[in-house]
Amino acid sequence: MTLLVVGILGRGLVDVDTPITAADDLGLTRGDGCFEGIRLSRGGAEVRVDKLDLHLARMARSAASLEIAFDEPAWRLLVDEAAHAWSSRFPTDTESALKLVLTRGRPDKPGTPTGFLTVSPLGPAIARQRRDGVAVVILDRGTAADAFAAAPWLLGGVKTLSYVVNMAAQREAARRGAEEAFFVSSDGWLLESPMSSIVWSVDGTLHTVAPGPNGILGSTTLELLAARAADAGRPVVSGAGRVADLLAADVVLSVSSVRGPVRVTSLDGRPLSSAADADEVLAAVRELTGFPTAVDAVPA
Amino acid sequence: MTLLVVGILGRGLVDVDTPITAADDLGLTRGDGCFEGIRLSRGGAEVRVDKLDLHLARMARSAASLEIAFDEPAWRLLVDEAAHAWSSRFPTDTESALKLVLTRGRPDKPGTPTGFLTVSPLGPAIARQRRDGVAVVILDRGTAADAFAAAPWLLGGVKTLSYVVNMAAQREAARRGAEEAFFVSSDGWLLESPMSSIVWSVDGTLHTVAPGPNGILGSTTLELLAARAADAGRPVVSGAGRVADLLAADVVLSVSSVRGPVRVTSLDGRPLSSAADADEVLAAVRELTGFPTAVDAVPA
Repeated sequence: MTLLVVGILGRGLVDVDTPITAADDLGLTRGDGCFEGIRLSRGGAEVRVDKLDLHLARMARSAASLEIAFDEPAWRLLVDEAAHAWSSRFPTDTESALKLVLTRGRPDKPGTPTGFLTVSPLGPAIARQRRDGVAVVILDRGTAADAFAAAPWLLGGVKTLSYVVNMAAQREAARRGAEEAFFVSSDGWLLESPMSSIVWSVDGTLHTVAPGPNGILGSTTLELLAARAADAGRPVVSGAGRVADLLAADVVLSVSSVRGPVRVTSLDGRPLSSAADADEVLAAVRELTGFPTAVDAVPA
Repeated sequence: MTLLVVGILGRGLVDVDTPITAADDLGLTRGDGCFEGIRLSRGGAEVRVDKLDLHLARMARSAASLEIAFDEPAWRLLVDEAAHAWSSRFPTDTESALKLVLTRGRPDKPGTPTGFLTVSPLGPAIARQRRDGVAVVILDRGTAADAFAAAPWLLGGVKTLSYVVNMAAQREAARRGAEEAFFVSSDGWLLESPMSSIVWSVDGTLHTVAPGPNGILGSTTLELLAARAADAGRPVVSGAGRVADLLAADVVLSVSSVRGPVRVTSLDGRPLSSAADADEVLAAVRELTGFPTAVDAVPA
């Protein structure tokens, strides 16, 4: 997981081991900032930055919620520089993960945020998870499904750097012999995974969890899916669900920007049945979200 | 708020503007780590590190919960070095804030945490808040008072770097014309302030909120208070309370390590009455927690 490319906003690309934040940067000391994770891929000689507009739009919303300045043109320039550096320096890499990070900066320089990006290889588990799916455990997130309705200070829907509970949930999943957690609200409603979103299919209709007072993050991948599925005549319902809905579904997916859609093979140790159309649903969702239909295909 | 001293664990003191974390340090990208805030003061020629044992014990517990290695002897050496550097470089400073930060480090170097410390001046508001007290607003933390009981992945009681909601709550308090927030659970029980603990006095008895399934942090200052108050024959009850208890109390305090105990002057805009013994209670709590009795006194 060595870094491949590192760039600093307002400065350009730097050596990947360059230390880039001071000891009192509020991103470091308070998790006070926001980020995006984006898939880089290659279409022939051309480098592709998946859904860049959607990611930058979400990052702008996160930054606005945190009252941190967001310089979109500067980010576009830096992303372009990083994508081309990755493409030319690592010509045999078919995919990588691009991460954009924005922090509030240092306390003695208010209004001067810290921005940087990294390009890193996909983790070794991703190819296997795309092929074989993931075992999932259900974890209580501790908040009710309406907890964020009148409480903007809880930062619902903001992709902040304060991810320590998400990381702890991943470790808890591993302790239970699974690879991933799905969070549910304290009153039993499906929320999201620490790093991805929940999708389930019933009789050909795709179901997703609507963001809102439940505080979950709006997914750029599901945004793309909803737009393209409508064009393709495939119904997508953005609403609410419970664990029982997943147990009764034809197929359950975990969907994220870099890894793409993967199948959920079990919930809390109970194998999930696969309906006859499960493979077809996975292939369709992969295609609609910009991934090759075959799970083991390299990007076209 | 320029930094006065910066030190890196395993390396020693460095220039205060030295960038010290790489772009993929998990403390920076995930708020994945823990910290302590400690008061440095001066007793004549001697530099004092308040409650160092209690702070290191809590940091060890935080690190253990996060499964991050904690090298206590190395921290003691670095703290000693930093305290003496502060004392000799800033001989006229009577107090400063020492912060210890431990992160999970870089993904490609598992088991190699990043540790560093900073010494910074006390913010300009602190002297005024000690003298005049603070206006407080009540904010819902979104979790029930028992939400953390069976959910270790929610990291109740762990002083993590993921403080973005605490920072947002401070901004919300400022928006409402106050200086600080008190969090309550979704079912109406008092929790804590984003940066301090709640204490209230009724008929000479001090009341505090007991940590536990409510997820609040165990306060080192209240730990010291409870031990010394018992010796001084002053009753302290660690239990539970509601906003109504604060409105009916003789005096309400917000208590933290660096600022010390300060009086709460209003709750959601309602002025808090001060009983005849309010000044005496504040002075006693200050003395029991290691602060000079008089609010405007410099450390002895």
